[in-house]
Amino acid sequence: MPVNYTTPSAQQLHPVAGVRLGIAEAGIRKLNRRDLTLIELAPGSRVAGVFTQNRFCAAPVQVCKQHLATHDIRALVINTGIANAGTGEPGLAAARATCAAAAQLLGIEARQVLPFSTGVIMEPLPVERIAAGLPKCQAALRGDAQAWHDAAHAIMTTDTVAKAASRQISLGGRTVNVTGISKGAGMIKPNMATMLGYVATDAAISQALLERMVKEAADASFNCITVDGDTSTNDSFVFIASGAAGNAEIIDAASTDYAALRAAVTAVAAELAQAIVRDGEGATKFIEIAVDGGRDHAECKAVGYAIAHSPLVKTAFFASDPNLGRILAAIGNAAQAHDTLGDLDVTKVKLWLGNTLVSEHGGRAASYQEADGAREMAPAEIVVRIDLGRGNAQAKVWTCDFSYDYVKINADYRS
Amino acid sequence: MPVNYTTPSAQQLHPVAGVRLGIAEAGIRKLNRRDLTLIELAPGSRVAGVFTQNRFCAAPVQVCKQHLATHDIRALVINTGIANAGTGEPGLAAARATCAAAAQLLGIEARQVLPFSTGVIMEPLPVERIAAGLPKCQAALRGDAQAWHDAAHAIMTTDTVAKAASRQISLGGRTVNVTGISKGAGMIKPNMATMLGYVATDAAISQALLERMVKEAADASFNCITVDGDTSTNDSFVFIASGAAGNAEIIDAASTDYAALRAAVTAVAAELAQAIVRDGEGATKFIEIAVDGGRDHAECKAVGYAIAHSPLVKTAFFASDPNLGRILAAIGNAAQAHDTLGDLDVTKVKLWLGNTLVSEHGGRAASYQEADGAREMAPAEIVVRIDLGRGNAQAKVWTCDFSYDYVKINADYRS
Repeated sequence: MPVNYTTPSAQQLHPVAGVRLGIAEAGIRKLNRRDLTLIELAPGSRVAGVFTQNRFCAAPVQVCKQHLATHDIRALVINTGIANAGTGEPGLAAARATCAAAAQLLGIEARQVLPFSTGVIMEPLPVERIAAGLPKCQAALRGDAQAWHDAAHAIMTTDTVAKAASRQISLGGRTVNVTGISKGAGMIKPNMATMLGYVATDAAISQALLERMVKEAADASFNCITVDGDTSTNDSFVFIASGAAGNAEIIDAASTDYAALRAAVTAVAAELAQAIVRDGEGATKFIEIAVDGGRDHAECKAVGYAIAHSPLVKTAFFASDPNLGRILAAIGNAAQAHDTLGDLDVTKVKLWLGNTLVSEHGGRAASYQEADGAREMAPAEIVVRIDLGRGNAQAKVWTCDFSYDYVKINADYRS
Repeated sequence: MPVNYTTPSAQQLHPVAGVRLGIAEAGIRKLNRRDLTLIELAPGSRVAGVFTQNRFCAAPVQVCKQHLATHDIRALVINTGIANAGTGEPGLAAARATCAAAAQLLGIEARQVLPFSTGVIMEPLPVERIAAGLPKCQAALRGDAQAWHDAAHAIMTTDTVAKAASRQISLGGRTVNVTGISKGAGMIKPNMATMLGYVATDAAISQALLERMVKEAADASFNCITVDGDTSTNDSFVFIASGAAGNAEIIDAASTDYAALRAAVTAVAAELAQAIVRDGEGATKFIEIAVDGGRDHAECKAVGYAIAHSPLVKTAFFASDPNLGRILAAIGNAAQAHDTLGDLDVTKVKLWLGNTLVSEHGGRAASYQEADGAREMAPAEIVVRIDLGRGNAQAKVWTCDFSYDYVKINADYRS
């Protein structure tokens, strides 16, 4: 059960002109699962993406990067069950064969197809099952909201709910839609991208600004989340602009149209990213860590992640135990991961749970009562605020707690 | 139940001439617990220590560093229950008051006393209970092996067993004893030291070489272990040399005596460090991660810790599941924590479970069978070997798995 998250109904999603989606059961790793998704883009669509920083990056990620360089993408193929990561040269050949199969079906070039895989690492991808399933996807291609809703379900692995988000804005009198889907519940600490996230708009925007916007949106959404600190081999966040809305093409990053579209895209991406944390493996709490008063954004983020990755902090959240010394210890440890924090003066650090000041002057705040801490720890949504007291930069990290079920899910996965 | 570890009996420990220990129940946080230890050193003893890198380092750690600078230490006071960390100025005053109380009792100066605390962070230290308990410790002071055994028990917190180790060597015809105790089960990822570790010898050694040896021994023992990746606020490893054995003082780091003593001290420290991992919170497996073929020691260690800290890897070990893609993913992530790994060529990385080659050329080894992996994962002790294929440096990391009981222990602690 995710924390305060319900999948939007198809009626709550806005279709995106120029984008059609179709899913199928291809039997990639288990039978009777919707495990294959084909997304078809109208000619002239523009695509940009950001991908995992893991050195063992998956074969499809490597192929995606090559194909994106050609700037004429017409289709995406997404399979679950097998990640096609840690698969060496045969894995690259399998990813390319997937693209070739989709290309033949759609009458396009293999380089115009982006492949994505998610699932178990180090097992071979059964390309023949994907090739056999793609015609079923093609037959199912539709551009309506239900097709988005179906695709959100078809890309799930250990997710307990499908994740989708949508916004509608007006640009120069034209209605523009922004709709996205994502998946992920474990091995979640994206660095430049998440497990799999797709956001599409029918707005017209230049390729250069599309690439800029995908990074800006990722930094304010998928790059703020962590479930377990493990950056996946397959993280991919893709942003598609079909241009079908008929607005004047956005070519100026300082324009109000750019700002309006970025706000909508970021809102969709942040909703999808938070949904991943709310559905994090075993999660019972959603925790926002807001770090302020740092010298720069990076050191604020390092403090946020040091807290979000501490198993001791995460189990204390699970227990609703205001064991705040564990948060202080995690702040003190951030210096080991981030050089600029080496001279952090802990006597200037302030820590709040919700609106309760918990710590200052290197120790417990004089006004702090354990009963206040217990009250702040009780809800399913908790905000932790830290003021580092040495600058004006800030960052946010979203995470979840660490429960028995996290261990159960990950000790049982594959079995 | 620790993994393959039993506390040595008192008969297996060698007393150290010049060192006496006494314990008491002081009621520091709970009643009926042996929670206070006094260690008295003969005049002329030399002491060196290494301490936590956590910026929120505890008040006693700060006082220890100041007092060690005076080079005339005569007593150590160790309390459990309260860590006296995250306690600000009042915490420093409490640590100094502890030293003053012990000094008055023993007729020495406060600066000749080292204070140590372990337990809950951010709660005030009840100095009056420590002061009231110290005369009981003094009355109990003894130099025999049973006193070491008792002290090993009195410094425990969430430990399920006491940890002690001992060696006897001969230096220039004189019998020299090396005996140590340690504690720690969670918040364990020492950086320069562990939670609490004490090793004493009656050998005579210069202060300069004592300080060198404590660092060398720490790097080959406590600095190789991790339970949960959380570096404590209180980590302290102290090395005492009373000089009472009557050997010729060791003054040359190139001498055979230095090498022989270092080997004994390192063996004791490594046994104590491994005991902490074997008794790690909820541990059911002891895992050695041996990384070879790196450009330098630091990058090998970064790879070892990336594996040892991955919750996904740790839960797979708990499940005895050869989910080896998780280990590959963790290796690929080490580059995010350690810059020199940015150009790691994953096609040159080799991975073994025990003696089974699991992965090479960026994917699964051709000879690998899942049944071999399952067989290697089954025992309580597992060796993971990695060859990075880019140099001759190596490092080892010792860790444990991640079980339901880890969550249970840390969700329940304090309650």
